[in-house]
Amino acid sequence: MAQNSRKLAIPAATVPRLSQYLRKLQEIQSRGTTTISSRLLADEVGTNPAQIRKDLSYFGEFGIRGVGYDVDRLITELKKCLGLNRSWNVIIIGSGKLGTALALYRGFQRQGFNLIGMFDADPEVVGSDRGAGPVLPIKDLKKFLQEHDVHIAIVTTPSAAAQQVIDLVVDADVPSVLNFAPIRASSEKPVILRQVDLSTELMTLSFYLDK
Amino acid sequence: MAQNSRKLAIPAATVPRLSQYLRKLQEIQSRGTTTISSRLLADEVGTNPAQIRKDLSYFGEFGIRGVGYDVDRLITELKKCLGLNRSWNVIIIGSGKLGTALALYRGFQRQGFNLIGMFDADPEVVGSDRGAGPVLPIKDLKKFLQEHDVHIAIVTTPSAAAQQVIDLVVDADVPSVLNFAPIRASSEKPVILRQVDLSTELMTLSFYLDK
Repeated sequence: MAQNSRKLAIPAATVPRLSQYLRKLQEIQSRGTTTISSRLLADEVGTNPAQIRKDLSYFGEFGIRGVGYDVDRLITELKKCLGLNRSWNVIIIGSGKLGTALALYRGFQRQGFNLIGMFDADPEVVGSDRGAGPVLPIKDLKKFLQEHDVHIAIVTTPSAAAQQVIDLVVDADVPSVLNFAPIRASSEKPVILRQVDLSTELMTLSFYLDK
Repeated sequence: MAQNSRKLAIPAATVPRLSQYLRKLQEIQSRGTTTISSRLLADEVGTNPAQIRKDLSYFGEFGIRGVGYDVDRLITELKKCLGLNRSWNVIIIGSGKLGTALALYRGFQRQGFNLIGMFDADPEVVGSDRGAGPVLPIKDLKKFLQEHDVHIAIVTTPSAAAQQVIDLVVDADVPSVLNFAPIRASSEKPVILRQVDLSTELMTLSFYLDK
């Protein structure tokens, strides 16, 4: 309950930064460093110390004035805050180039994300290994979701298929979806839905390039 | 100058939404619809009418009370605002699965992004076509940048190579970089640098999943 209400107070824009702090601190930890000031941490992640102090203030007092943060303890607290002190089951739907690239991404396991299945509609690729064991036929997805506890569905299908696939996984009570298909996906049921959208990224660059 | 100072007033969080409005309006236009209310547009993109009115208010008055927005005119203005009334030259560095997936992404050309080259360090893949003509050797990148006006460099190299590649393109005055390598890239020189980061996306899902 305390954890829950604390998390509710964290602004949405802070969460991605907490993940960046965590990865930078893990890198710092692997170099054998045990304490770090907010200024040095800020330099490492490319922000300013005030931002870091504000972001970390949402979940407790970790810094010691004049000494800095205890790296091990901050990593533990960030992982707890980000829900990374447990593992999550992930599936990828769409085993094309993007799906395969994501399946081969090594950061997955390291942070506790277990890739437990990969699906495709194309009979030609079903059975082949694209980085997550044999690709399963999409017609078996519904049954798979009944038999496995899937927490995150990554959707890398063509646009035309994406909304239908998202409806299917949401209907099967998968609580979160990361959609890479260039559609503005929606859901009738409450679900955590995030989009990674190349087109938006390019247009945002274009906005800032155009002077 | 008027355009410039108007753009400066647009908050960073508004820009990706403008790109979503544009794509939705293009879809609406292709269905033959000529006017749309902020309520209907809001339903289509999954936001609320007040948000849309606020976002569009930054660059002029387009809506007519009781009638709505003129779709053609709003598309023209959004494209102008997003710098999409011209074309941008794009290169992809790293022709692995992710780079290839991006090169094959059809939304590119449609919005005025010209993919003019693709580079890789691996002699085995140099010369093969991964969706953007023959892959060029990375050693030729510097010369290519002297000879071509490149506006956007997309970096999909392995982590270990990414910062070095980013330094090279920034040194050659490429004004913007879209980095997919899971590092927190930085630059000494001013450059428009955006990151697409699977690890951050997954951790953000984890944050919201963990109750």
